Amino acid sequence: MTHENLLDTYAKLAIRTGLNLQKDQQLVITAPLDALPLVRRITEQAYKAGASLVTTIYADDETTLARYQHAPQGAFDVAPGWLFNGMAEAFRGGAARLAIAGENPALLSGQDPDKLSRANKARSRAYRPALELITGFAINWCVIAAATPAWAKSVFPGVPEAEAVDRLWKAIFACTKADLPDPIAAWEKHNADLGRRTEFLNKRRYKALKYKGPGTDLTIGLADDHTWKGGGGKALNGVFCNANIPTEEVFTAPHKDRVDGIVCSSKPLSYQGSLIDGIKVRFERGRIVEMTAEKGQDAFRNLIDTDEGAARLGEVALVPHSSPISKSGIIFNNTLFDENAASHIAVGQSYTENIRDGSKRSKEELAALGANSSLVHVDWMIGSGELDVDGIAADGTTEALMRKGEWAI
Amino acid sequence: MTHENLLDTYAKLAIRTGLNLQKDQQLVITAPLDALPLVRRITEQAYKAGASLVTTIYADDETTLARYQHAPQGAFDVAPGWLFNGMAEAFRGGAARLAIAGENPALLSGQDPDKLSRANKARSRAYRPALELITGFAINWCVIAAATPAWAKSVFPGVPEAEAVDRLWKAIFACTKADLPDPIAAWEKHNADLGRRTEFLNKRRYKALKYKGPGTDLTIGLADDHTWKGGGGKALNGVFCNANIPTEEVFTAPHKDRVDGIVCSSKPLSYQGSLIDGIKVRFERGRIVEMTAEKGQDAFRNLIDTDEGAARLGEVALVPHSSPISKSGIIFNNTLFDENAASHIAVGQSYTENIRDGSKRSKEELAALGANSSLVHVDWMIGSGELDVDGIAADGTTEALMRKGEWAI
Repeated sequence: MTHENLLDTYAKLAIRTGLNLQKDQQLVITAPLDALPLVRRITEQAYKAGASLVTTIYADDETTLARYQHAPQGAFDVAPGWLFNGMAEAFRGGAARLAIAGENPALLSGQDPDKLSRANKARSRAYRPALELITGFAINWCVIAAATPAWAKSVFPGVPEAEAVDRLWKAIFACTKADLPDPIAAWEKHNADLGRRTEFLNKRRYKALKYKGPGTDLTIGLADDHTWKGGGGKALNGVFCNANIPTEEVFTAPHKDRVDGIVCSSKPLSYQGSLIDGIKVRFERGRIVEMTAEKGQDAFRNLIDTDEGAARLGEVALVPHSSPISKSGIIFNNTLFDENAASHIAVGQSYTENIRDGSKRSKEELAALGANSSLVHVDWMIGSGELDVDGIAADGTTEALMRKGEWAI
Repeated sequence: MTHENLLDTYAKLAIRTGLNLQKDQQLVITAPLDALPLVRRITEQAYKAGASLVTTIYADDETTLARYQHAPQGAFDVAPGWLFNGMAEAFRGGAARLAIAGENPALLSGQDPDKLSRANKARSRAYRPALELITGFAINWCVIAAATPAWAKSVFPGVPEAEAVDRLWKAIFACTKADLPDPIAAWEKHNADLGRRTEFLNKRRYKALKYKGPGTDLTIGLADDHTWKGGGGKALNGVFCNANIPTEEVFTAPHKDRVDGIVCSSKPLSYQGSLIDGIKVRFERGRIVEMTAEKGQDAFRNLIDTDEGAARLGEVALVPHSSPISKSGIIFNNTLFDENAASHIAVGQSYTENIRDGSKRSKEELAALGANSSLVHVDWMIGSGELDVDGIAADGTTEALMRKGEWAI
């Protein structure tokens, strides 16, 4: 297949399998400007699937950077709340949401940490109403990626730009199954596989997970009434969608007050334009009480200082070390891919869908069950070929879930 | 000056003279994707002027067109109200607004008139809250233009694209004074000239204007308590700005029920992707009761059928036939320029600022004075080198205002 054919297939996969966009549904896309050729194909597929209106909000690295270079110091507590409120209104009105990842992971790495921290906090606060509709799975949504030049160069440093972009597209197509003869059927099989694992884990109802590996000795208590999810799922608007393409994880809600021990990151994390690597933290009763990072320590410190919930866990996810993303051998510097290369945890907001009947419960009830609340939700990788994970039952007995990074169940 | 220097000068003119952007003010820009190089320069100038945040919403001709080609028939009553409501929220929160014109004037000319009419109606309705803040002059705003390839090719048909774009940019820089040694000082002088004319007209307090020319014999009653405006003005947020760059007009509010006679358009009009030319209409007691157009008659019919106010006048503007835009000899197919080449009228919504103390009056009071109300506001050109305009005083005496298209005062 030519690159153009693959792009079309990928666009169709996003609309059909990713969003399962419905007739007469509106679609809101967010995308980097460099993703324009993909946005145009996706828009065409969306209208062919019966969309009433597709609206794309573009981000431009150069103007994002211009703010840090030229705006007054006092400008950084401001965020486009009007735009995020508009998006929340669109979602409440039934619109689907497609996010196209592809940002330059190091765009803001040289900028003033104080400006970054204030801008990120303002942005997180302003984005909350929209984010709650997404994390609460009110609507069908999906995140996919586009190989932009800036991102490709960060993934393949030293490689000429055109070749880097080409290699990144090939990796994206391979990881998302877009290069298979029948990607939509391949995703149906994949969803069935992930479904079997979540069913197993949901029957077991473990009290906690125990992680052991180099530099890691961690017990993660699970939220009461937690539910494991994986692969596609049905949003509250009744539409079955695949919120992440690719996805290899099964995941649930930790208990925000029951995490203890030490853990090391196993892959770098790209957060709002900063690269963070070599994270080591110690949890005590759910909270990060000690932390260091070999790279980007200030950025990680700013992240977990966002609010009380940002220093506690909102997600725990299991991914085999042999996942296609892991086997590609590529560090993508992008969570959508890297989180599917290794088991991971996320600080911040937990997903309502990871609590049984979560959408029917009040915030207070959810908190009492152990669900975490925060303006942020940021995944970081802790899995490797040396990680063992056990499930701990209510009676204290343990069961091997993963050995040397692979499923033992 | 190189093209790059001129673009920088023009960007600075937009921020300083056009918007007079204030320190810590947010800025919302709307722009065609092809205006990206200009958007980047304007964003830099905005931050240098102290903007806290610049957000640009881009329009892409190809995805706009894709909707007409692929979306289901039922899709065209939908508009991005969530985005327009967001913009209105931004304006209420103090943000300034910059619109960059540059759309392909014939983008949608081949599309189904029924789809166009429904889409435009839905869009006008959804945009109303934002438009009212703009027409009510609640905030400092400005419209400028960028020479996009599609627009340039429509202005210079048959000319190679790069040359057409170059010629259109040169015309834009000339018409906006951006190519003068000190554009900001030139605009100050220009504003003083326009100010003298509006002062004269405001002292006279004419009851009506009388137009005579080939195919035109029209009396336009003016709204009670009308006020003439021209050049820069102070928005309700206290900021003096130039809402149109270029601008050569002095304008006021007609009385919605007191327009009688016949009038011909003197230049083509581009409305929502359709070119309309050779308009002939007859007014009776303010309302268009007969109309034909040599080209785009359906589009013009759809426009004046939008609502009751769309068939009545909301603006009357006087522009000398010797204006720089007229002297360029170019038909721009864009109202921002063409309306400054000739005297014109607009069907639809009138400007609150054209009624004395307009912003303090209720909608009912404004209507009683003759101010028009509609979802649309569309200008069309009636001026030429053969048009005479008289002012009619309350006692019925007349005074020559324009002779053969030139100022007589």
